[in-house]
Amino acid sequence: MDISALRSANPEHWSKAAAIRALTLDAVHAANSGHSGMPMGMADVATVLFEKHLKFDAKAPDWPDRDRFILSAGHGSMLLYSLLHLTGYEDMTLEEVKNFRQWGAKTAGHPEYGHAKGIETTTGPLGQGISNAVGFAMAEEMLRARFGRKLIDHHTYVIAGDGCLMEGVSQEAITLAGRHALGKLIVFWDNNNITIDGTVDLSDRTDQIKRFRSAGWQVLEIDGHNPAEIDEAITAAKKTRKPTMIACKTHIALGHAAQDTSKGHGALTNEDQMAAAKAAYGWTSGPFEVPRDIKAAWEAIGRRGAADRAAWEAGFAELSDQRQALFNRIFARETPKKLSAVIKALKKQISEEAPKVATRKSSEMVLEVVNPIMPETVGGSADLTGSNNTKSGDMTVFDVDNRKGRYVYWGIREHGMAAAMNGMLLHGGIRPYGGTFMCFTDYARPSMRLAALMRIPTVFVMTHDSIGLGEDGPTHQPVEHLAISRATPNTWVFRPCDTVETAEAWELALMSKETPSVLSLTRQGLPTLRLEHKNKNLTAQGAYVLAEAEGKREAILLATGSEVEIAMKARDMLHAEGIGTRVVSMPCWELFEQQDEAYRKRVLPAGSAVRVGVEASVRQGWDRWLCGERGREARAGFVGMEGFGASAPAETLFEKFGITAEGVAAKVKSLL
Amino acid sequence: MDISALRSANPEHWSKAAAIRALTLDAVHAANSGHSGMPMGMADVATVLFEKHLKFDAKAPDWPDRDRFILSAGHGSMLLYSLLHLTGYEDMTLEEVKNFRQWGAKTAGHPEYGHAKGIETTTGPLGQGISNAVGFAMAEEMLRARFGRKLIDHHTYVIAGDGCLMEGVSQEAITLAGRHALGKLIVFWDNNNITIDGTVDLSDRTDQIKRFRSAGWQVLEIDGHNPAEIDEAITAAKKTRKPTMIACKTHIALGHAAQDTSKGHGALTNEDQMAAAKAAYGWTSGPFEVPRDIKAAWEAIGRRGAADRAAWEAGFAELSDQRQALFNRIFARETPKKLSAVIKALKKQISEEAPKVATRKSSEMVLEVVNPIMPETVGGSADLTGSNNTKSGDMTVFDVDNRKGRYVYWGIREHGMAAAMNGMLLHGGIRPYGGTFMCFTDYARPSMRLAALMRIPTVFVMTHDSIGLGEDGPTHQPVEHLAISRATPNTWVFRPCDTVETAEAWELALMSKETPSVLSLTRQGLPTLRLEHKNKNLTAQGAYVLAEAEGKREAILLATGSEVEIAMKARDMLHAEGIGTRVVSMPCWELFEQQDEAYRKRVLPAGSAVRVGVEASVRQGWDRWLCGERGREARAGFVGMEGFGASAPAETLFEKFGITAEGVAAKVKSLL
Repeated sequence: MDISALRSANPEHWSKAAAIRALTLDAVHAANSGHSGMPMGMADVATVLFEKHLKFDAKAPDWPDRDRFILSAGHGSMLLYSLLHLTGYEDMTLEEVKNFRQWGAKTAGHPEYGHAKGIETTTGPLGQGISNAVGFAMAEEMLRARFGRKLIDHHTYVIAGDGCLMEGVSQEAITLAGRHALGKLIVFWDNNNITIDGTVDLSDRTDQIKRFRSAGWQVLEIDGHNPAEIDEAITAAKKTRKPTMIACKTHIALGHAAQDTSKGHGALTNEDQMAAAKAAYGWTSGPFEVPRDIKAAWEAIGRRGAADRAAWEAGFAELSDQRQALFNRIFARETPKKLSAVIKALKKQISEEAPKVATRKSSEMVLEVVNPIMPETVGGSADLTGSNNTKSGDMTVFDVDNRKGRYVYWGIREHGMAAAMNGMLLHGGIRPYGGTFMCFTDYARPSMRLAALMRIPTVFVMTHDSIGLGEDGPTHQPVEHLAISRATPNTWVFRPCDTVETAEAWELALMSKETPSVLSLTRQGLPTLRLEHKNKNLTAQGAYVLAEAEGKREAILLATGSEVEIAMKARDMLHAEGIGTRVVSMPCWELFEQQDEAYRKRVLPAGSAVRVGVEASVRQGWDRWLCGERGREARAGFVGMEGFGASAPAETLFEKFGITAEGVAAKVKSLL
Repeated sequence: MDISALRSANPEHWSKAAAIRALTLDAVHAANSGHSGMPMGMADVATVLFEKHLKFDAKAPDWPDRDRFILSAGHGSMLLYSLLHLTGYEDMTLEEVKNFRQWGAKTAGHPEYGHAKGIETTTGPLGQGISNAVGFAMAEEMLRARFGRKLIDHHTYVIAGDGCLMEGVSQEAITLAGRHALGKLIVFWDNNNITIDGTVDLSDRTDQIKRFRSAGWQVLEIDGHNPAEIDEAITAAKKTRKPTMIACKTHIALGHAAQDTSKGHGALTNEDQMAAAKAAYGWTSGPFEVPRDIKAAWEAIGRRGAADRAAWEAGFAELSDQRQALFNRIFARETPKKLSAVIKALKKQISEEAPKVATRKSSEMVLEVVNPIMPETVGGSADLTGSNNTKSGDMTVFDVDNRKGRYVYWGIREHGMAAAMNGMLLHGGIRPYGGTFMCFTDYARPSMRLAALMRIPTVFVMTHDSIGLGEDGPTHQPVEHLAISRATPNTWVFRPCDTVETAEAWELALMSKETPSVLSLTRQGLPTLRLEHKNKNLTAQGAYVLAEAEGKREAILLATGSEVEIAMKARDMLHAEGIGTRVVSMPCWELFEQQDEAYRKRVLPAGSAVRVGVEASVRQGWDRWLCGERGREARAGFVGMEGFGASAPAETLFEKFGITAEGVAAKVKSLL
């Protein structure tokens, strides 16, 4: 690579891009870890994008109509941090850049949403950013349709590498983008022909150009170090109604001894080689120093959108108070005031009518009353709409000719759905929920984890949540998935026992601002157990006494979801034998853990009563409640699953696996 | 669809295919659940495949050189069960077909490996079968190269639907197949244009033809109800060196009132409509009745391969005793006798030399001695070869011109890698292991679960298993993944504390015949703690006393992996204060659970000693050992993670999160 030719061809561009490269080398050197090569390879693309196209104002990073820039190849985090610092984002100080990858710094190894403004999403796990981006672009389409072009009209730009494109989730993302003609989504492919193991060819020979075209994308091919070509390609990308992939031929670790090698992917910390690279760049400043003129040029870029932003605010001020309030509410992730009343009314009605319905159906009943008052909700399902009961009657289907549609047919793409829902939430103004079978939590896991890590309240509607699914068999029957979801930090796992608890769980999930929720819902019908209406949301306490013991309390049954009915029946049997039995419904362990000790003690008093947990799931985690919390192992038991399920009618399975009222009563008696 | 034209065009073919369709209708009707439409749509393709191409002998279903038939669209299980029954597989009796989806039947809702011969893999979770198939085809290439065409020379056929092709993992699979020019892999795409939510168009407009071509496949397009076209396409597919996708235009639920609708996907049980469909087929037999001539024709198909099989056996008998023994051993999943000696020798050497190494490096040291004596191992990594330490020095890289290569560069495809490894194991003759970062267990989860469900001993090498990963930050730091793996039934989760335990874990993982293993290995260096050589594999007991208390035992520290070192240091500190402390290393909870109570009691005696668990992971599951097993909550504590990690050097993170010897000692003292 003839660096001097690049320099002389466009010196002003070059010096700005060189600032990114130099900061990257310095930060990685200081941290003695990180990934130098990608920022050095993509600096030219990023520079042209920020200088000529990206609509943003570094002083107003929350401007709702900004273009979104997503670094899907998150290991190249120094590219993003450099850009934010250079353009003048207030919280990306030079100090932060110097503290790259250190405790407490905003400059984590991979970009983390919430650490600093301008980081639109957390990336690093490959394929996630490009898949989030589909959600960002869908959210933009939806909100533009609803609020008009004056309020919402922006692009979503992504930088993705070969890692992102090899991950399967990227296929789900790009086919979704193609299907929905997301013309405002523009992806730069950092085509540097290098992965960690060596050249891409070692593991992949896919023709990415043809692949993206097969999914309905426009594809442009450019030299990723030629500013004019980059500029022209972005201009062309903005003109089409298709999503655009710009294949950028680049050199990883440009200008460094490790250029074009897999070594160039990682931390380039050799001082002599750094010096040589900087010399090639014509960069004479010391470590972390950016010449004043170059910094000024970058800061001018950071202010480039200020006038647009001011105009936008003037336009916003012209909206009716009501429209302004709605816009502000949904971007603040606030629920409407009416929500509480609507939930209470439904609870009251249910307690009176006491229907027997599956909780997936209960969930639909909630959505029928919630969606009409929350225009920001967007529902969907990974091709199980009729089974997940995720589509309320008022919802129309999002499509190319119905951008106001609030329901998404995600197709058989659980992972892409979860990632895109995260993207919608991160964009702002949308409150997404999506369904699949609980067992296929597995497919969506990487994105569910990121929702928890990013502290965003995505809602995962997981139906068919146990062997109660029946004949489809163990491939479709979750047994470990409650434990998996509960093991994940910052995740609320709701397993409601009836429609009342389902309504309460939905209320909490929608009111959550920082915690994603998993709703674990049954396929099979369940009776209403909450027959006495209470305005209070009992599920908010995580666990509560559903039915008190008659006479002396000798046993406490702890159960969730469909097994609460079984526990209640066991209680009847035990009472018939004079064994006083309390039933504790535990719809959300995480919220129960957050209660003070006095409350927890009231629900689970110490003492001689035996404790039996009942859940059609593995025992993992249950000992906390059975043996811990002042329980005693010798007086604790569990009725649940010890292994995978089987294919048979649901009633047969509960019988054969011993998850029955008789089984629970027998377990209690064996412990007394 | 003019059924009568199809019937009259080729009556002999038609009647055989109609038998599949009628059995499907009858079985689904009897079960009152299941998926009728797919078998009815793909019966013609399957009939031609079995009649004219598939190399198999129904009486010798384990013949190693049989063609493999994989129903990736597993919900259409009645297609497979019908074929197995009709062609005369002994264990697929008519009784089994009648008991479709009932307790104890071999005919589960989705095909389950191990239930009946002829079921090559468990499918149902979409995208898995086609991804397993890549592993089958790779195994075939490898074994053909090693044993020669006389012994191994067969095809892998797959039926996949739109669901399989929309799942991201299918992209990983097809790009792998294209990269490795797996010419013996032939995929039929059931192009019926229907998913559960409606027409495919609702969620996807991908040009699958172009997509597969972009990945290096040959693609053929045919009418999936025209036997001649089907035959010609398969013939053409067998002639190329590329993998072939045959796009079969079909009608779901052919001939039924629900034909070409999403309703046709599910259970078609309406009796009038069934009667009408059968009438259209010209099928006059009663439920579950197959006319004798049609059954005879199918049974002849089942015997078609008998001569080939006999010839194969004659050829096998000509091999040297040694070659025969090797072949039989690897197909029986037996380890070589030498394995034990090699492991013992390594353990002895390590105990003497006491190196300080990361357990990922320990794992490489084991592979260096194991791979040379186990030619059936195939290693690989999802683009982290140098980090996962999965490539031993003797291994060459599998490639188009090196089919004997035993190392696979899987690329950034954790899910595809896991699924393909399962396929290799299911094929037989290969013992695969593959690596990625422990955190990306998430991406591979669906296939890891299936390994457990299928009872196959795939080995997942998961390195960088805690905050010890350091600067890459919380996106790459597992905290819940030990809990997730442990929650999964039939999975051994090994978290060795040093090289000796790593060697023991590998020995167990390789000797396992029915249980997959997760090896949880560190990035950071660890001292050798097992300084006294023992021939016995202590890890086989799951947990054991690594260091006894001096004086009166007041505390028991339970730890795994990198935290055993911390526990040992805490023990020193406590001893210095006169607090007798036992350290229990727990490299495999699942194996400890399997020990008898007497042993468990010796390791974790009841009594007043406080118990503190130490693991850089969430607490979930630990209460079993801390409060349960005769422990007492008031005297139990845990030192670990309460949430996600952070980006900083590893030592800083252990310090900041309080996972230190000082922290453990303080916890003990607070409980005393």
